[in-house]
Amino acid sequence: MIEKVKVAVVGVGNNTSALVQGINLHRRTGSLVGIHRPLIAGIGVGDIAFTAAFALSDAKVGEDLHQAIFAPPNNFPRLDFPRLDADLAPSGMTVQRGLVDSTEIERVALALKGSEVLLYSAPSGRPDTARAYAEAALKAGVAFINTTSDPIARDASLLTRFEEAGLPLIGDDLASQFGTSVLHHALLRLIEERGLTLTSSYQVNLGGTEDFRNLVENPNTKHQSKLNALGSDKVQVAPLGYLPHLKSQKITHLNIEALGWGGTSVSLDVRLQVHDPSGAAGVNIDLIRLAAVALRSGRGGYPAEAASHLKSPPGTSV
Amino acid sequence: MIEKVKVAVVGVGNNTSALVQGINLHRRTGSLVGIHRPLIAGIGVGDIAFTAAFALSDAKVGEDLHQAIFAPPNNFPRLDFPRLDADLAPSGMTVQRGLVDSTEIERVALALKGSEVLLYSAPSGRPDTARAYAEAALKAGVAFINTTSDPIARDASLLTRFEEAGLPLIGDDLASQFGTSVLHHALLRLIEERGLTLTSSYQVNLGGTEDFRNLVENPNTKHQSKLNALGSDKVQVAPLGYLPHLKSQKITHLNIEALGWGGTSVSLDVRLQVHDPSGAAGVNIDLIRLAAVALRSGRGGYPAEAASHLKSPPGTSV
Amino acid sequence: MIEKVKVAVVGVGNNTSALVQGINLHRRTGSLVGIHRPLIAGIGVGDIAFTAAFALSDAKVGEDLHQAIFAPPNNFPRLDFPRLDADLAPSGMTVQRGLVDSTEIERVALALKGSEVLLYSAPSGRPDTARAYAEAALKAGVAFINTTSDPIARDASLLTRFEEAGLPLIGDDLASQFGTSVLHHALLRLIEERGLTLTSSYQVNLGGTEDFRNLVENPNTKHQSKLNALGSDKVQVAPLGYLPHLKSQKITHLNIEALGWGGTSVSLDVRLQVHDPSGAAGVNIDLIRLAAVALRSGRGGYPAEAASHLKSPPGTSV
Amino acid sequence: MIEKVKVAVVGVGNNTSALVQGINLHRRTGSLVGIHRPLIAGIGVGDIAFTAAFALSDAKVGEDLHQAIFAPPNNFPRLDFPRLDADLAPSGMTVQRGLVDSTEIERVALALKGSEVLLYSAPSGRPDTARAYAEAALKAGVAFINTTSDPIARDASLLTRFEEAGLPLIGDDLASQFGTSVLHHALLRLIEERGLTLTSSYQVNLGGTEDFRNLVENPNTKHQSKLNALGSDKVQVAPLGYLPHLKSQKITHLNIEALGWGGTSVSLDVRLQVHDPSGAAGVNIDLIRLAAVALRSGRGGYPAEAASHLKSPPGTSV
Repeated sequence: MIEKVKVAVVGVGNNTSALVQGINLHRRTGSLVGIHRPLIAGIGVGDIAFTAAFALSDAKVGEDLHQAIFAPPNNFPRLDFPRLDADLAPSGMTVQRGLVDSTEIERVALALKGSEVLLYSAPSGRPDTARAYAEAALKAGVAFINTTSDPIARDASLLTRFEEAGLPLIGDDLASQFGTSVLHHALLRLIEERGLTLTSSYQVNLGGTEDFRNLVENPNTKHQSKLNALGSDKVQVAPLGYLPHLKSQKITHLNIEALGWGGTSVSLDVRLQVHDPSGAAGVNIDLIRLAAVALRSGRGGYPAEAASHLKSPPGTSV
Repeated sequence: MIEKVKVAVVGVGNNTSALVQGINLHRRTGSLVGIHRPLIAGIGVGDIAFTAAFALSDAKVGEDLHQAIFAPPNNFPRLDFPRLDADLAPSGMTVQRGLVDSTEIERVALALKGSEVLLYSAPSGRPDTARAYAEAALKAGVAFINTTSDPIARDASLLTRFEEAGLPLIGDDLASQFGTSVLHHALLRLIEERGLTLTSSYQVNLGGTEDFRNLVENPNTKHQSKLNALGSDKVQVAPLGYLPHLKSQKITHLNIEALGWGGTSVSLDVRLQVHDPSGAAGVNIDLIRLAAVALRSGRGGYPAEAASHLKSPPGTSV
Repeated sequence: MIEKVKVAVVGVGNNTSALVQGINLHRRTGSLVGIHRPLIAGIGVGDIAFTAAFALSDAKVGEDLHQAIFAPPNNFPRLDFPRLDADLAPSGMTVQRGLVDSTEIERVALALKGSEVLLYSAPSGRPDTARAYAEAALKAGVAFINTTSDPIARDASLLTRFEEAGLPLIGDDLASQFGTSVLHHALLRLIEERGLTLTSSYQVNLGGTEDFRNLVENPNTKHQSKLNALGSDKVQVAPLGYLPHLKSQKITHLNIEALGWGGTSVSLDVRLQVHDPSGAAGVNIDLIRLAAVALRSGRGGYPAEAASHLKSPPGTSV
Repeated sequence: MIEKVKVAVVGVGNNTSALVQGINLHRRTGSLVGIHRPLIAGIGVGDIAFTAAFALSDAKVGEDLHQAIFAPPNNFPRLDFPRLDADLAPSGMTVQRGLVDSTEIERVALALKGSEVLLYSAPSGRPDTARAYAEAALKAGVAFINTTSDPIARDASLLTRFEEAGLPLIGDDLASQFGTSVLHHALLRLIEERGLTLTSSYQVNLGGTEDFRNLVENPNTKHQSKLNALGSDKVQVAPLGYLPHLKSQKITHLNIEALGWGGTSVSLDVRLQVHDPSGAAGVNIDLIRLAAVALRSGRGGYPAEAASHLKSPPGTSV
């Protein structure tokens, strides 16, 4: 039997809620609905053990992980568990206080001992914090996954240090399992493949999570990361809209205008509605396993097989 | 210098109008806007010479090709030619009366002498007529392209006869350069690639051409051909809507419902607006050149490189 | 305390399911969500007593009304009743066999004795059946509501007979509480009020109920009734699409193209998603009470206050 | 014959371009397409004479009005004038330098002598400038129209002074002829009229004009004004998106979620595409004539008949 992947997580927000709930739901029902890869090198979706969790909010620190994931401002829904067993039993694991500056790297590194992978799933827009956790991972000998748009894997010297330590470093900026960037990119590629000439394109993103509110107030790195993912100067990304009533749902409006044969017009309008944290969790479950496989086989640095899940892999613009 | 491809065309409808106008526009402006492949084995978009055209309507038979393409019920717009040279000069080629039954195969075969490719671009839903023209092509030693959903290339015995005669046979049912099937198929594939679970999908197609009206009255073969292109029993194709005011524009509404991680919902709604005849012409210009290349190199039968341009290639359901 | 309105219903399909469930839900929860008029002349939403129900299907005839409303092909969902009282208790009223031809008018008239209102809520497209029930209502001295597009209230001689008998006659063709016709009409009126010039408009309707399937196979009277409701020759109604997976949901795509100041274009695209039977029930609850009020005050014929709920009132085209 | 209305205009942006071009187009073609009211108290669309125009940009000051309206950053298109007369002849009126602070009120007041109406059509977000022009109008005895969201007509003491002077004061914030606010408001009203229960609603606005860019950088007064127009706390207005490629087009995405009978869901999604300056001009042509009629009949202050054209009339929140 496969050894469970020991995962520590930074951030007990909606994405962690979706990840934790989804793993438990899969364990109980065996359902493969919405699951990208049932097995990665033999590791199943249920073969994950959470070994540590870090948060900053008083509502979460000191609570059992399975309670903390429902504390506000989290607003990802409770998934429907089978009747007789309707509640998520306590995990037995208590959320620890996360670090706020680099003086605490040592403490976190100690807490990471015994973990294999550190999933950094805090809000985007705090590059110093992200970097401090990466340092703690290096110290503790743990693989690091940066799901935010802050530049970690794109930092060449950090990447070299992970390589030299034989530790995987995956990032930056998660491409959601089925999010705006994935869809927009696929449509633009299709336009090109079929020989149409792109004239303009836009995307507007609306959401109701705390992560969204954070991005609205600190849009810069995320915006560049989105443009990295689309790769055309004809594409415009409108400002994010924080609409609290959407809760963990995200709504995107896309438009693509192109010219076809004879210069005639082609117009494409798309509306996409997803649960943003599900899109993140559906990718994190793969990245965790890819990191574990690389770690267990001694491959440090950036594992190329993670590329389709990232918006800004090493080498793209910061 | 490359020898021009000598093309005969059956049907002087909107698709032929778009093809003829687009080739002339390219010749005058050199523009590559909306052109899928500028060169195929060295043959450019302008390297086409029309050698014969067949139609049935009195408004078209006996007229110069460049006049006949604007006769009603055709409603594809006049493309914007550069100012000083605003009108399409006469082609010098007169539209001939097409065949109505198989007794006329001989006459058409004679008229095809000197052509390399016969582009069958009549309305879908007249399989006997399509077959009669294919017989005429065989007799005249000319490659045959069936752009309709009537089963010609899917007819195994016909395909064998073209193979044995060293004549290319391309079909069936053109996948528009950027049409509903291409788009719907790409989105369904993306859903699958990303690991979502499809729950349902529909498409509705609205158009205003004579071809559309014809399909509304005779939907069967086209409907099956669409389903061939999508390949899922969860996809439903609503009845076509003939809306005359749309003229040569086609509007499609697509919906895809899926489940992602944790069983949460993903909804995708798309509206696509294209000029249908442009989508056909943009593909026909490639198929003509693929047919010519195969013919000139002595390869009979179905050329596999045509596959991405067809909804129902040999081997799919009739 | 107000006397309950005694209602007989023809047709135990989705619309009746929505009506019966909604009345019970309101009685238990007191909720006024989605209710157009809490009181009509003092009569509340809960002040309805079902006195008879007629159906044709073996799965419904002989069953308790509260069971029959869930028999296939009905696919309106079970509404969420409060926890402790999760199921609809039996109504104590058994569904009777409906009439199939005019020889049975007498039998139905007898069964209607004691009722005040007959709600004709069978599928559209069976004018002879609708008329036979209207005759039975006349005989029994009961008000008649025709929710279908079959011409009953538009039949001048029938209307005169109801008037002379002092019996209300309401119809034809229910305008859903918030359906395509109501929305399309409101938007076209707004375009006109603001001084824009309409150039074209279309609507496409997709649904998954048995009523929808029936309309797809028998579209004529319904189609005319829709055009009555829109009142412009620039508006086109595409063929209905029966998509079983939608169940009781209805999806409409509307487009309006207009010209504004300086001849510049205005485009409006709308997607509406509703539960069709809820839209019907939300109006039937008003029509039943309007009919009872008119009957109780001795006003026969067509009550003008029903106008906003009907697509084809007396005087419009058949 | 009616006496032409003598109009001075502040701001030679897109809205003025649309107004000036549209009036000329109407004069030449007589077309009433997109015109809300052909006559107001006998005054036609062509019965306007421009007597002064104020701008700040060097590209516009000193130029003939008919040239200045095409100077960048203006990007409203040139309307299609009939062939033989394809260009707009010079107006003979030169654009003057506008005021930048209140020391210049006197100069502007002098320049307004002989005008009847001052149309303030500068960008929103400069309340001091708006107020200075209103003072100049008072001094010169000219009616004032404030098309911006800056509070002028909502300033009770200013309004009193216009009343006492017998001068009309119209404002604030133009409701476009067919813009987002008008449409959103109409749909919310329809939801209410039909008895549905609103759960949430949002609107997103995208545009490419300089006015739009200005609003993105200075969103406050405009945002409040939009909420005034919608009047529900369940409605959220997402941040404006400045997308230069849209030029003078504005695209709006609206969503409305509601509950109907039985608590079932109703979803409405709308995409509106308009030329923003046309929407403004189509209303300004009415406001100018309403102001002139009030002035000529000696009615000072706010004329109630302007209400349907304004988002924030006197009495609404600032």
